[in-house]
Amino acid sequence: MRAVLLNCSLKPSSEPSNTQMLADTVVGAMAEEGVETSTFRLADLTLDHGVETTMSEADEWPEVHDAILGADILVVATPTWVGHPSSYAQQALERLDAMISETDDDDQPVAFGKVAGVVVTGNEDGAHHVISEIAGGLIDIGFTIPGQAWTYWNRGPGPGPSYSETEEKHDWSEDTGRTMAQQLVRVARAFERGTLKA
Amino acid sequence: MRAVLLNCSLKPSSEPSNTQMLADTVVGAMAEEGVETSTFRLADLTLDHGVETTMSEADEWPEVHDAILGADILVVATPTWVGHPSSYAQQALERLDAMISETDDDDQPVAFGKVAGVVVTGNEDGAHHVISEIAGGLIDIGFTIPGQAWTYWNRGPGPGPSYSETEEKHDWSEDTGRTMAQQLVRVARAFERGTLKA
Amino acid sequence: MRAVLLNCSLKPSSEPSNTQMLADTVVGAMAEEGVETSTFRLADLTLDHGVETTMSEADEWPEVHDAILGADILVVATPTWVGHPSSYAQQALERLDAMISETDDDDQPVAFGKVAGVVVTGNEDGAHHVISEIAGGLIDIGFTIPGQAWTYWNRGPGPGPSYSETEEKHDWSEDTGRTMAQQLVRVARAFERGTLKA
Amino acid sequence: MRAVLLNCSLKPSSEPSNTQMLADTVVGAMAEEGVETSTFRLADLTLDHGVETTMSEADEWPEVHDAILGADILVVATPTWVGHPSSYAQQALERLDAMISETDDDDQPVAFGKVAGVVVTGNEDGAHHVISEIAGGLIDIGFTIPGQAWTYWNRGPGPGPSYSETEEKHDWSEDTGRTMAQQLVRVARAFERGTLKA
Repeated sequence: MRAVLLNCSLKPSSEPSNTQMLADTVVGAMAEEGVETSTFRLADLTLDHGVETTMSEADEWPEVHDAILGADILVVATPTWVGHPSSYAQQALERLDAMISETDDDDQPVAFGKVAGVVVTGNEDGAHHVISEIAGGLIDIGFTIPGQAWTYWNRGPGPGPSYSETEEKHDWSEDTGRTMAQQLVRVARAFERGTLKA
Repeated sequence: MRAVLLNCSLKPSSEPSNTQMLADTVVGAMAEEGVETSTFRLADLTLDHGVETTMSEADEWPEVHDAILGADILVVATPTWVGHPSSYAQQALERLDAMISETDDDDQPVAFGKVAGVVVTGNEDGAHHVISEIAGGLIDIGFTIPGQAWTYWNRGPGPGPSYSETEEKHDWSEDTGRTMAQQLVRVARAFERGTLKA
Repeated sequence: MRAVLLNCSLKPSSEPSNTQMLADTVVGAMAEEGVETSTFRLADLTLDHGVETTMSEADEWPEVHDAILGADILVVATPTWVGHPSSYAQQALERLDAMISETDDDDQPVAFGKVAGVVVTGNEDGAHHVISEIAGGLIDIGFTIPGQAWTYWNRGPGPGPSYSETEEKHDWSEDTGRTMAQQLVRVARAFERGTLKA
Repeated sequence: MRAVLLNCSLKPSSEPSNTQMLADTVVGAMAEEGVETSTFRLADLTLDHGVETTMSEADEWPEVHDAILGADILVVATPTWVGHPSSYAQQALERLDAMISETDDDDQPVAFGKVAGVVVTGNEDGAHHVISEIAGGLIDIGFTIPGQAWTYWNRGPGPGPSYSETEEKHDWSEDTGRTMAQQLVRVARAFERGTLKA
C-alpha cells in the first residue's frame, strides 16, 4: 500500500519543518502497517498556479499528480497561518481540482477509492478549521476522509511556541496521529477488500 | 442497510421544507439500493442544548441517538442561514459530540464504521462552506465521509428563490444527490465486506 | 454610550459560564470608558427559531432586538463546540438576519453605524474560526468590525481545561480583551463624531 | 483618499480577470468619491512565501506593503477555488501578518485606522465563506471591516459560467459593489474626522 504526503510548509527543506515533525509520526505508524510514503515538500518545487494538471514545461506538479494517482492514501500536512491552511496547501487543492474531471476505466473520478487525512501544526489556534477546509476540498475532489483521520498541535491562546520549541502535549498529538494512521489504513484496506464499484 | 436523515430546517413539519425536497432525492436513490431511511425533523422535537447524550426527561435526543447507533449511514440536511449550517444542525453536532467518548465492544468510537453525507439548500450562497463545516464536525466525531457524498442547491448571487420556487438547475442537484447516495452506499458496503478492525 | 452582550453559552445562568468570565473583562474595560452594557444570557430566554424579528407571543427575541437597536456596540460571546460557534450564537445570527431589511430614517440598514466584536472560550481549538464566522455574519447584516475587536481563550491541543479550571494564559486573553474594548469604543466614537451619512 | 486593490486572480494580466471586472465597479464608485486606487495583480509579481515583510532581493512584496501603509482603504479581490480564497489571497494574508507587530508613532498596529473590504467572483458557490475568511484575517491584522463592505458574484448551483461569460445578475453584484464602496469611504472618512487615538 502506498501513500503520498504533501508538506505545505512555507519553508523549503533547507529549514526544519514543524509540520514534518508531526507528520513523521503518521508516516511512521503507517509504515508499521506496511505503507510506503512518498513525501513532497511543496516549497522545494516549481509549481504553477492554476486549476489544470499540466500547466508549463517548468511546472513540477505533474510528478506530484502521478504519485497521488498511484497511491491509496493522501496526507496533506500544513502549518496554520492567519488561522487558515498555508498558501501552498491552497495551491495544492487548486491543482488537485483538475482531478474532478479525470476519470478511471469505469468512468469514475480518479480519487474515488482513495482516502485522505490532514496534519496541522501552528503557533496559534486554528487547526480544526484548517482540517475542515482541507477535508472539505478533498471530499469535493472525490477523496474519502475516514473518521478522525487528522491530528494537530498548537499551544494557545495567542501566539505561542512552535512544535519544535517545546515538548508540551506532543504525546496527545502523536497518539492522535497514530489513530489517524490506523484509520487511513483500515479504510484503505476495506476499499481494497470490498469493491467500490456500483 | 439502514440510514438516518436529520432535517435541520428551522421550520417544523407543519410547513414545507425545501431541504427535505432535495434530501428526498438522496433518500430515494438509497432506497433503490435497499437502504431504509428514518427521518427526524429536528424542529418537531424537544431537544435540550448541551454536549451529553442524556440531558433531561423531556429531551427527545436519545431516540435520535439510538437510531444513529443502529444505522450505517447518516445524512445531515440543512438550510443555509447567514452562510452557515442552521442552528438546529449545530445543535445536532453538539449532541453528537458525546459520541466521541462512546465506544463499542472493541473499544472503538461508535461512529467508526459509519458513513455520513450532507445535503444543503439555501436562498443564498454558502453551501460549500456548510458542507465543510458539517463534514469537519462529523469526521471529528468518527464518521467517514465518502468522496462527493454531498449535494446542494442555491441560485445566487444575492438572495434568490427557494428550491421549491423554481425548477432551475434542480437537475444538477438531483444528479449530484444520486452520486452522493451511490457513494454512501458503496463505502458503507465496503465497510460491511471488509472488516474495519485493526 | 451603550453596549449589548449576547452570552451564547449552552448553559442557563443557574450554572457558571466560562464565556461570561472572559466577557466580563471586556465589559469592565468598556465601563471604564463610560459604556453601559446590557447582558442577555440566551439560554435563559425563550427564543423562537427563524429569520424574522417577531415570531410568536412567547418569543423573547424582540426585547434583545430592541436593546441592540438602542446600542452602539454589540458583543457576541460564545463557547466553541465542535470547532464552531454555539447553536445559540447561530440562532442569534439567524434572528439578526432580519435586520438586513430594517432601515432607519435615511433608508440605511439599522446596523450601519453600529460596531461589533467577538469573545470566544473553549476547551478545544477553534476560536479564530468562530471569530471569522460571527464577524462574517455580522458584517453581512451591516455591523462594522473594528480591527482586533476580539479576544479568546483555549488551551490545546486536544480537549483541555475550561477557562475557569486554570489560570494559565488568562493574562493574554484579558489583555487582548482590553484592546478589543478600546477598539470598539474608539470606532464607535469616531462614528459618533464623524457622520456616517454619504 | 487612497486605496489599494489586491487582485488575487491565479492568472497574470496577460489574461482577462473576471475578478478585476467586478472590482472595477468598486474602484469606479470609490473614484466618484475622490478615492485614487492603486491596483496590484499578484500573479504579475515575484512574491516570496513567508510571514515577514522583507524576505529577499527579488521579492516585490515590500512595494505592495508600502502602498498599503500609505492608503486608507484596502480591497482584496479574489476568485473562489475549491470554495476558498485563491492561493494568492492566502499568500497576501501571510505577508500582511507581519503588520500585526509593525506599529505607528503612537505604538498602535499600523492597520488600526485603515478599512478593508472584499470582492469575490467564482464559477461556483463559496463567496460568503471567502468573505468571512479574508475579513477574519484582516481583522486579526488590525483592519476595520465596515458593514456590508463586500460584493460577490457566482451563478450556481454547481460549476457555472464565469462572470465575463454572462450578464445574468451582474446588476445585483454591481449595486452591492457600490454599497461596498460607499461604506468603505464613509467609515474611512469617519476615521479621518474623528480621531482613533484613545
